[in-house]
Amino acid sequence: MSGQQDVAEKDFVMPSLAEVRAEAGTVDTRAVLANGVDAHPVESRPAIALALWEDTSISTAELKAAAEAKCAERMPQLHTFVPLYTTNHCDSECKMCSMRKGNARMERKFSGRDEIIEQLEILYKHEGVRGVGFLTGEYEDKYTRLSTAFRIGWAIRTALDMGYERVYFNIGSMEPDEIDVLGEWIRAEDPVTMCVFQETYDRGAYTRFMGKTSAGVPKADYDRRVVSFDRWLDAGFRYVNPGVLVGLHDDLSSEIVNLVAHGAHLHQRGAVVDLSVPRMRPAMSSRDSTRVDDENYLRMMSVVAFTCPEQRLVLTTREPQEFQDEALGLAGVISPGSPDVAPYRADSQARNEETTSQFLVADLRRPRTSSAGSSPRARR
Amino acid sequence: MSGQQDVAEKDFVMPSLAEVRAEAGTVDTRAVLANGVDAHPVESRPAIALALWEDTSISTAELKAAAEAKCAERMPQLHTFVPLYTTNHCDSECKMCSMRKGNARMERKFSGRDEIIEQLEILYKHEGVRGVGFLTGEYEDKYTRLSTAFRIGWAIRTALDMGYERVYFNIGSMEPDEIDVLGEWIRAEDPVTMCVFQETYDRGAYTRFMGKTSAGVPKADYDRRVVSFDRWLDAGFRYVNPGVLVGLHDDLSSEIVNLVAHGAHLHQRGAVVDLSVPRMRPAMSSRDSTRVDDENYLRMMSVVAFTCPEQRLVLTTREPQEFQDEALGLAGVISPGSPDVAPYRADSQARNEETTSQFLVADLRRPRTSSAGSSPRARR
Repeated sequence: MSGQQDVAEKDFVMPSLAEVRAEAGTVDTRAVLANGVDAHPVESRPAIALALWEDTSISTAELKAAAEAKCAERMPQLHTFVPLYTTNHCDSECKMCSMRKGNARMERKFSGRDEIIEQLEILYKHEGVRGVGFLTGEYEDKYTRLSTAFRIGWAIRTALDMGYERVYFNIGSMEPDEIDVLGEWIRAEDPVTMCVFQETYDRGAYTRFMGKTSAGVPKADYDRRVVSFDRWLDAGFRYVNPGVLVGLHDDLSSEIVNLVAHGAHLHQRGAVVDLSVPRMRPAMSSRDSTRVDDENYLRMMSVVAFTCPEQRLVLTTREPQEFQDEALGLAGVISPGSPDVAPYRADSQARNEETTSQFLVADLRRPRTSSAGSSPRARR
Repeated sequence: MSGQQDVAEKDFVMPSLAEVRAEAGTVDTRAVLANGVDAHPVESRPAIALALWEDTSISTAELKAAAEAKCAERMPQLHTFVPLYTTNHCDSECKMCSMRKGNARMERKFSGRDEIIEQLEILYKHEGVRGVGFLTGEYEDKYTRLSTAFRIGWAIRTALDMGYERVYFNIGSMEPDEIDVLGEWIRAEDPVTMCVFQETYDRGAYTRFMGKTSAGVPKADYDRRVVSFDRWLDAGFRYVNPGVLVGLHDDLSSEIVNLVAHGAHLHQRGAVVDLSVPRMRPAMSSRDSTRVDDENYLRMMSVVAFTCPEQRLVLTTREPQEFQDEALGLAGVISPGSPDVAPYRADSQARNEETTSQFLVADLRRPRTSSAGSSPRARR
């Protein structure tokens, strides 16, 4: 094994922000903007991202145009997948999330075999959707975690067998035995993407929102979460989707540095990487979060899209239609849908009830964009 | 709806032992023995059972011969199913059981898709088995219970699709939403038997062994457990298997009365009933149980078999071979196998390790009897 591989197969370690900042000081931002990030192999991607983010002489519009030009080179320009929450039970206590265990106002639901198949058929046949993402809460008990991996593994297999071309799953951190149970349902080459958003890379903010491990809260385990992708790649799988929940941590600079570093690490290990940077949405009784304005949010997306050109940003219908339209050129994946449990109907709008949803979306329109062009409502 | 149906569709209520005892005093035991229980519709089955059990003028050998004659009228004389433990994780704290949550010496295991299929294939192809019983622990959390119902529903469907002709499941008490999740995998007419052994019908002994509900121990809920079959029948299913763990409660008279009453209630509701009366086996650190001797145990089996002629007693390899041979004529189902997790091997004896098994069996021989005569080792 070469030294290069040795490095690449180690677990992700967050860079030192001070070192990245020092390196960022050496970046010629104008040159990078003109020639692209790959023309500057001397500097690391996190340093380039930070330099672009902080260089106020470069307008957001300029950054956005450069990023959009990069995104336009990818084919297809957009993938689509629709989220499918298979339950809103959760053992975690994340302050910003309505599904948190302590939220007594949440009416808990669970989709069995028939409902999962029905939802997949509605999306496939009525919406022309060819991508789906399965979601659950995160659970503390080992048996419950294994049982969840089993059910979601079955759901993924069912979707692939039905003809879905791209499947995501977002069920919390995963340990090797849990990956084994889920992985038995698929082949290594199947287009199945693990989503484990770190939410914030800042340990202080993470603990403030996700809680302490001593309380038996599964998502509180920062370290288990941050290496879940490495375990997925160890098991022979390829598709990953890290993410930051924008608004949890005030310091966007450090979030950008760490997200870009995480994506670069996974890319080096041979992974196909999507990146999620959802912005906080209203959830029942959530407090203590920051509203990042459109300007800063678009700048963040632009910097990430530009510095990680082979990695696709996921845009969701959390955002209102007007913002989606503005950000669409920065995205590589569009994910329209509802964070309610089994919300899709053949003959009416998807449900998004406050008592059963993770949060309220801004836009409940049906999927209208599809990479395969197979949606009756495809607009490009 | 007729009054008869009204009565039949109520939940099981345990009879008053004093009333049954009074009624038992009116039973002509010799006449019953000569003519069979169905020739005496005036007296209830529990009263007849108690009268036969307590009439010392009738020897156990005589009772056994009469019961064997009844059993010999049924076709086929024996069904077979092999237990398949799919995990040894459990949230309960039953004192007599090695799988109890607090047993730190138990090494916890979980079978995923591949292992369940592999075990089913070994039993089907190498052993010629056509009946299987899936087991788990019992879980406290609603989501975990639903997830278990999902996985076992899938396992049942997989076994039926593979050609199994009879499937049992023993996963603890079940509530209606849990039955719905499991039931989605099968049709009402599929030969799928719910096993929820009450273990003991005595509330004092039950609490002593299974614990108190206030402690968050799922099996401690006596009332939820005892009506689980009624919920299963409500959902349109037919096959049930109540049981007593012989040795938990000293008073065998009351256990016999209640088990026979439970079977009679379910039979009246239209169920196909099997009855289990396993005798305590050594389990890690189990105490506080009574050893019922062979004579009393055979008498108990004889009384139950005679008074419930259409209900099949299940005989397992918990018992040594010599006892099995003696009791075989009283049984309608034989269930050979190991209470270890996924213990079957194509080329060697089943595993039954103390660190991973619910208990240690007396007889690890392969299945040797099959109702379908399809086993290569069938002996009748």
